[in-house]
Amino acid sequence: MLGFTYYTPTKVVFGPYAELKTGELVAEQGAKKVLIHYGSERVKRTGLIAQIEKSLDELGIGYVELGGVVPNPRLSKVYEGIELCRKEGVDFLLAVGGGSVADSAKAIGYGLANEGDVWDFFDLKRKPAGAYPVGVVLTISATGSEMSNSTVITNEDGWLKRSCNTDYIRPRFAVLNPTLTMTLPEYQTMSGCTDIMMHTLERYLNNGGAMDLTDEIAEGLLRTVMRNALILLDEPENYDARAEIMWAGSLSHNGLTGCGTDGGDWACHRLEHEVGGMFDVAHGAGLAAIWGTWARYVYKNNPARFAKLAVNVLGVTPCDDDEATALAGIGAMEEFFRSIHMPVSLTELGVHPTDEEYKELAHKAAVASPTGTLGSVMKLQEADMEAIFRAAQ
Amino acid sequence: MLGFTYYTPTKVVFGPYAELKTGELVAEQGAKKVLIHYGSERVKRTGLIAQIEKSLDELGIGYVELGGVVPNPRLSKVYEGIELCRKEGVDFLLAVGGGSVADSAKAIGYGLANEGDVWDFFDLKRKPAGAYPVGVVLTISATGSEMSNSTVITNEDGWLKRSCNTDYIRPRFAVLNPTLTMTLPEYQTMSGCTDIMMHTLERYLNNGGAMDLTDEIAEGLLRTVMRNALILLDEPENYDARAEIMWAGSLSHNGLTGCGTDGGDWACHRLEHEVGGMFDVAHGAGLAAIWGTWARYVYKNNPARFAKLAVNVLGVTPCDDDEATALAGIGAMEEFFRSIHMPVSLTELGVHPTDEEYKELAHKAAVASPTGTLGSVMKLQEADMEAIFRAAQ
Repeated sequence: MLGFTYYTPTKVVFGPYAELKTGELVAEQGAKKVLIHYGSERVKRTGLIAQIEKSLDELGIGYVELGGVVPNPRLSKVYEGIELCRKEGVDFLLAVGGGSVADSAKAIGYGLANEGDVWDFFDLKRKPAGAYPVGVVLTISATGSEMSNSTVITNEDGWLKRSCNTDYIRPRFAVLNPTLTMTLPEYQTMSGCTDIMMHTLERYLNNGGAMDLTDEIAEGLLRTVMRNALILLDEPENYDARAEIMWAGSLSHNGLTGCGTDGGDWACHRLEHEVGGMFDVAHGAGLAAIWGTWARYVYKNNPARFAKLAVNVLGVTPCDDDEATALAGIGAMEEFFRSIHMPVSLTELGVHPTDEEYKELAHKAAVASPTGTLGSVMKLQEADMEAIFRAAQ
Repeated sequence: MLGFTYYTPTKVVFGPYAELKTGELVAEQGAKKVLIHYGSERVKRTGLIAQIEKSLDELGIGYVELGGVVPNPRLSKVYEGIELCRKEGVDFLLAVGGGSVADSAKAIGYGLANEGDVWDFFDLKRKPAGAYPVGVVLTISATGSEMSNSTVITNEDGWLKRSCNTDYIRPRFAVLNPTLTMTLPEYQTMSGCTDIMMHTLERYLNNGGAMDLTDEIAEGLLRTVMRNALILLDEPENYDARAEIMWAGSLSHNGLTGCGTDGGDWACHRLEHEVGGMFDVAHGAGLAAIWGTWARYVYKNNPARFAKLAVNVLGVTPCDDDEATALAGIGAMEEFFRSIHMPVSLTELGVHPTDEEYKELAHKAAVASPTGTLGSVMKLQEADMEAIFRAAQ
């Protein structure tokens, strides 16, 4: 077991009509002028933006809108946001949408609080010294950005998808009304469930340090997401199931499921970032397409850990040795992904890299890491990354 | 499932030598002059206070000491602290010790930020409008005060033990080094484990609302505490077991194990407060002495919930009906308490109230509640409270 810092200052307001409290939550932060940042027009059509603006009006808080954030949010939109906020004197960033919108708002927050090019922080050239405050009204359960210290932005110049993690950008508040996620199409819902599971799996499948309590929480969270994802296949408007998934999404990426560990593996995420950057796929689906191949490539470095996952989460009966149990668990996880209509290969994801593109994916993933390697269960070199991409075909 | 607010802003620094970071954590809060508040001289003898003072010295932060906090911390000490802090210009309260010291510091924090008698806030006469900031260096795992919104103080005038809960007093940081708890005697360690379990049990055993994810976390936490308490019986200096218990203590009372529920029952805690106030017993031991009697008194109002606890936490094989399973679970929990040398009756606790004292215990518990009743599984009237106290004999 290793030492850790746990810091989750985000105030969560969870339940029906939670969005009506947005104005009050912004006022608590002492904000005077808010950027309302959003993605698709869906949040306008449903009246959500209007409700939020009413709650700001009632408290005399000004605002300006900026929509058009896309999945795998773009650096150009971040620049646009920074410029708009400077011109309008914005002092608080309110993301209304899913993880892409939250990540875009966080990146704008970095840009406003620091001189120079904000991409420097994603490109590992400099470290940010602060960020403008961010709040989130969540409409998609997936990335956990509403409580996390992370933002992931895609630079169109080279299609690089990079993250920048600091406590400065942990949101001040998160408004979580499960009802707001009910109209999401099945593919987005299940892709979100996969991303949520993966945030805990990345931490759980590590190679240094373990804590009973963290494992219990991680395993319970994974079981909960799996049970409720299956419910949502048949009943997409089941409030309780939407709520379980939504809260799991926040807890899965706020640090709770990694306490006492080495921080986790994260190779799958980093490999998927390259696929997402180049081919613009749904992040959760991209993770499902890679995970099984990655797992079979690395499990022999820590078969006991994979076996524990198999038994405690996937209901596998223990085999004679951990390696066999681990393999059965990896298969069972892929079966689960299939059952919620997620791809378990790049082909099923609809991505068909050329020979050159396989090399490019691996090279980009390697150079994005300061050490040139990825992972904890197994330290992957660039050649390993390429082998995994190719085997995931 | 019900809506909820979840707010745990406390920055936790966990692991060996975590106390060396105290100065840095205080500096992050912008504090200039610190009250170092503590209980027994143990924290001075071990050199802990000296280490903390060194870490403050290095950053040029001033401090003044106030020791002598006792279990079931007294209002007179709180008054003394308020006066000292005003005289010395203290702007930050650092508790070094267990829950009693943290609670005393929190109450001083209320007193410093508000005019008038601080007891008014415990006596339900007024609500506090703020509090001075508090940080905790924990040496006893039990109350969870290091992350909670609660402080419990005993007024020697009438021996009333009362709480005052607001987000103002959630500690800014908590320094958790499991090694610091290793020298605790077995009785205090096991009393702490019981208190930790009870903070989750009070939330789990409710009568309105449930959330799969919260149940998974609660059940996992309870199993973890039970496993590791048994390890500590034989190996009190087992670092990992101390660490599991310590982290469970914080998570058990920061709100996590109650999300989506009606907030929980809390009758056992309120009944124990009266026993603690009048007879000055260890809080966790007092809870163990009452819990089984309370559970048998109320379980028929929600047998399914008690049965779930029995099966998922206590390993009871399900019986033909929930009531039988529930009863088997209550017995199994009492067996567990016995196995860690905790009392399961007032007699075993060493408390022998007179006929008048039983009435007084119940009356005090009833009038301390704004509604005159206690509990969620069953709304207890004063007569019920008296019956439980008598049956717990």
